[in-house]
This record gives sequence, structure tokens and C-alpha cells, in this order.
Amino acid sequence: MKSNHATLAFGRGTEDVLLEKVASLLGGKNQLPGAGVSLGIGDDAAIWRPRPGYEAILTCDWFLEGVHFLREKHPPDAVGWKCLARALSDVAAMGGLPRCFLLSLAVPETHLGAWLEKFLAGLHRASRRFRCYAAGGDTTRYQKILINVMAIGEIEGKHGVLRSGARAGDFIYVTGRLGEAELGLLGLRRSKNASRAPSAWLQKHLYPEPRLELGRWLASHRLATAMMDLSDGLSTDLPRLCAASGVGARIEEAQLPTARIRALTTLRGSELVRAALHGGDDYELLFTVPAGKARLLPSTIAGIPITKIGATTAKREILLLRKDGREEVLHPAGWDPFRKKRR
Amino acid sequence: MKSNHATLAFGRGTEDVLLEKVASLLGGKNQLPGAGVSLGIGDDAAIWRPRPGYEAILTCDWFLEGVHFLREKHPPDAVGWKCLARALSDVAAMGGLPRCFLLSLAVPETHLGAWLEKFLAGLHRASRRFRCYAAGGDTTRYQKILINVMAIGEIEGKHGVLRSGARAGDFIYVTGRLGEAELGLLGLRRSKNASRAPSAWLQKHLYPEPRLELGRWLASHRLATAMMDLSDGLSTDLPRLCAASGVGARIEEAQLPTARIRALTTLRGSELVRAALHGGDDYELLFTVPAGKARLLPSTIAGIPITKIGATTAKREILLLRKDGREEVLHPAGWDPFRKKRR
Repeated sequence: MKSNHATLAFGRGTEDVLLEKVASLLGGKNQLPGAGVSLGIGDDAAIWRPRPGYEAILTCDWFLEGVHFLREKHPPDAVGWKCLARALSDVAAMGGLPRCFLLSLAVPETHLGAWLEKFLAGLHRASRRFRCYAAGGDTTRYQKILINVMAIGEIEGKHGVLRSGARAGDFIYVTGRLGEAELGLLGLRRSKNASRAPSAWLQKHLYPEPRLELGRWLASHRLATAMMDLSDGLSTDLPRLCAASGVGARIEEAQLPTARIRALTTLRGSELVRAALHGGDDYELLFTVPAGKARLLPSTIAGIPITKIGATTAKREILLLRKDGREEVLHPAGWDPFRKKRR
Repeated sequence: MKSNHATLAFGRGTEDVLLEKVASLLGGKNQLPGAGVSLGIGDDAAIWRPRPGYEAILTCDWFLEGVHFLREKHPPDAVGWKCLARALSDVAAMGGLPRCFLLSLAVPETHLGAWLEKFLAGLHRASRRFRCYAAGGDTTRYQKILINVMAIGEIEGKHGVLRSGARAGDFIYVTGRLGEAELGLLGLRRSKNASRAPSAWLQKHLYPEPRLELGRWLASHRLATAMMDLSDGLSTDLPRLCAASGVGARIEEAQLPTARIRALTTLRGSELVRAALHGGDDYELLFTVPAGKARLLPSTIAGIPITKIGATTAKREILLLRKDGREEVLHPAGWDPFRKKRR
């Protein structure tokens, strides 16, 4: 079986320019047989087979203009990169290997030229970077830019790391540094010119790197009892992991790997802590390890630092130990589209 | 592994009402082990495994307010039914068996009450009817109702029926009757009260039945050389199948299974033919069978009539033989969101 690009029938009832560009910029050489895709762009559906002994990881992610990105502020190349990267962060959080994706794209007629090409170039770059290939999708017209990415990954049977496996007394860890993407977004919103050379923080906001290798390492070594990715902020996501596992947590402000202060920044330490606790879009991993196995955990995995920030508790509440010794309840204040319109 | 509904963490950063309703109305008893889903709603991703020897069919479909349905005209129950049914029509067109789906849903805050419940009830009904179960998804807020359904099916290895297998001289068939959904939509747009008892045509527009059993029959009997579903109208979809197969086609007006004239209708025969040629949303199957195997094809499959409407040709053009003997080129005039805003 093979895909037939001549039909350009990517999705339904869509305009030729859009189809041609999507098929030519994402199809063809990207549909490597190694990805397990036996039928890609160009038919009613894609056909894909996981390797024997592996299970399929299925996840999908909205990426909507006015909710998750701003048409005028976010470079189209970054929109393309990030829509795939954030979907793959869910694959990383299960400990899986990316295989292929479906792109659902709705665009206004005014954006079928340069915007679309740059968007597809960014998506293509992410696709190669993460070895996750376009297998199909659906395209249509809309007054706003709407994106939904369905990512398909693979995990060895029974190796997937769920949110629900933490036990009271497990140590809590995060990867990388927290709050940088939020601070990058803040800079982007304040800037008049989005095309200026991005700071490292803005880079993390625009071009996040899902922790795929690190997630696979944790899954294959069977060290993590629970894991999820940090997309909505630690104060929102930690309670989710705890609720799924039936535990509470106590974390320490002093241990948080906050954004590194750089020259010329005018931010105070409390702002860095706030960004680390509540900032979204970090796409780092949050995971738990039994205290007795903590010594088996290296300080960095795949080049990314690992930081212990606290421990789970039997009492089902989320506590934050401040640097001054006060203990307070940590309330979710991360990204929630129904709470406030934030980006 | 098991899903943990207590977390309600269906998707990211979304409001509790939405999460609770989606998880309670689509989750739980719907996540049958028979569907191959080992991890459903409530984690970062779903985990699913096709049976040994089977391949996965992957497809996704936009269903957008103002493009594919009208908030004020289409009953929410029908929106729920149809968003899954049309995605499964792509599974039917490959000859596959539905297994599970991911729901990406964006709704305004004003629609978290009755609208959402009726929508989920319609989706739940379709889910049970087609034995295709909710495995996860993503939810967020938006000013318009946005839906994307990713459907996952299964097909025995190498049994999938593509668009590209037709050879010149194959007979061309369609299932059911063509144009009824289009005529139903016409009635809906003209009506002042959408809640009136729907006609059979409107029923087909609101609650389409993907031809799953019929598609599987054709795939398992290896009779169809090419197949696709009719979503955008025969005049748009037939050229797609022909382009994928590298053939042309000649179909006959006299053979088209047009909508049945019912009492009290004021439509002329030419309007029925126009609806059959160009009307969208039929979700019937279009397929080709080698002339020498045509006698093996029954007149109905799974209770649905099969009609021969013409044959493929070596010359790559799409011709229509009119009842009066004239032969003309058939131009695509079906649903294309970039050509005109139609619904």
C-alpha cells in the first residue's frame, strides 16, 4: 500500500493551494517506513501499525489563535513548531516514542501564502527533530487559525508511566527550570517587535523541547511511579497528579529550579518563584520516585537537570514550604482558559 | 493500567463543569476492554493496542460552527451524533472496524449547560451505536463551538481498501441514495423551527449512518479495487478517486440513485439529479469493482442497496451521460469551504 500524493486529497473539500502546500511540505520524504505508517497523506485515513509487543499512545491538543497564540505576536514558524512539540510532550509524559501525527488545520484565505509556508516549515522542522511524521489530517477554511494535532506514539506493553502510581512518601522531581516560558511570553507581549532576536526565555516559550528522551529513560528504568508533563503550571498540574494517585504533596520554595537570572533583567526573586509555581507552557516533566530508589536517579538525564522539589504525603493537600519557614496551601493559579483569558 | 476518572484531567487547563460532564457522560462504562483501550480518559494520553495481525486506521475530522453546522439551526444532539458518524465514515471507506475516538472540544462558557449535555448525549448514542468508545481528548474555551474528532479503527493487515486501486474498465458503484442529506439541509435552512419532526431527508442530514458493515463486507470479500466515502458530493469526490487511481470515469444520469420523491414535495426531477451529483454529507460509499467480478456483488449489502452508476475509463476525464443522450464533462460543484460559504 502506498500514499498517492497526486490526489492531494488531504482531508475533505479543501482548496488546492492549502492541500498542495501541506502535502508537499509535510508529505513525501517525511513518511519514512520506520515510523510504521503504511498509508499516509492522500486517502480517507492513514494506516499505521505499532511494532509487535508495543502499545499505541494517542493524544490530541488544541492550538488556537487567541487562546494559545496570537496571530500578530507569534512567528508562524514557532506556531508550527510548538503545535507538534506540545502534543509530543504528552507522549514524553507516558515514556513513549513518537511515531506519526495527524494535522487538523483551519486557516483564513488571507493566510494561504507566506504565513502557511512558514507555519509548515516550522512544523516540518519539529517533525524531523522529533522523528514524528505527518500521516494525514483535515483542512478547512475559518476566520481564525485553528490547529489540532493528534500525536501517535509507541510504548512497550505495560511500560507506560501513568499519573496515578505515586504513593505517600515518594519524592517529587521536575526536569529543567520552571517559569522560563512564562517569562518569555511576558517579554513577547511587552515587545513591539516579535522578530527581534529571542532571549533564551522567549526561545523556550516559542520552541519548547518535549522531554522525550528523558521520559523514555524514566519509563525504561521503571523508576518513576507517576509522571505527567507541566503544561498549565506546577500549581495546577501537581494537584492533578496527586488527585490521580490519591496522595497529597509538600514542596519547598527553596528547592524550586527557577529561571536563571540573566544580565539586564529587572525581575525580583519573588517574580521568578511566582513564574516557577504558576507559569504555563514549560513542557518539563513532573514525576515521583520511591524514596528508597532516589539514589538510582542521576542528577541529569539526557543532558537535562533533575531537581527534587518535595515529597508526596498521605494527607490529601498541597502544601508549599516558604523560604522563611511558613507553610501555606498552594492554590492552583496556572493556565485555565475558563478562569481568565491570558494569551 | 487503568483510567482514573477522579482526576477529571481530560485534556488540559479546562473548567471543571466541562471536564466532569465529558468524563461522566462519555467515560466509565463506555471504555470497554473490547475496544483495546487499556488507558482511557484521565491521563496525559490514551493507550490502545490493535489486535495481533491488524493495522490501525487513523483519521480526524473538523466539525466547526458556521462551517459544518449552525448553532441555532442544528440540534446539539445531532451535532454530537454527526461529529463521530462523519469521522467513522472514513473508517468505513477503508473497510475498517471502529475502535475508539479522541474528542477535541472547544465551547463558549454560555454552552456548558443544556447544550453541552445534549451534545454529549448525541455523541454517546453514536458511540454505542457504532461501538466506538471515547478514549480521551482535549477541551478548552472558545467563542465558537469547535469540534475535532480523531477516530481510530482496525483493519486486518493488507485488507484496507484505498482510493488508488481502480483500473480502467472497472464498474463504479455507490451505496444508498444520493442527495438526500443536501435536500434535508435545504429544508432545515428554510424552516423556522428546527425542532419539528424531521423528514427522512433531514434525518439523513442530521444523523448520518456511516456504511461500516457494508465497507467491511467489501474489504473482506476483496471485491472493491478502490473505495472512498462521499462527503463532499459525487462531482467532487469521484475525480479524487479517479486521480488517485490514474483513471477517468463515465457515469450515467439515468442510473443515479436520486432521492426518492415523497408526497407533498415540490421538487423537480432536475433538482433531485443536481442534489445527487453535487450534494454533500451523504456519507455513502463510492467504490469500483472489476467488470469480471461484478456478478459476485449482491444488489444489497447489510440492507443497503448498491447501484452501478458507470465505469472507469483510460482517458483521464470525468464524463456524465445525460438522459437525453448528451455527454458532458462533469465539473466539481460539491462542498469546498474555500469556494463558497454554504452552511
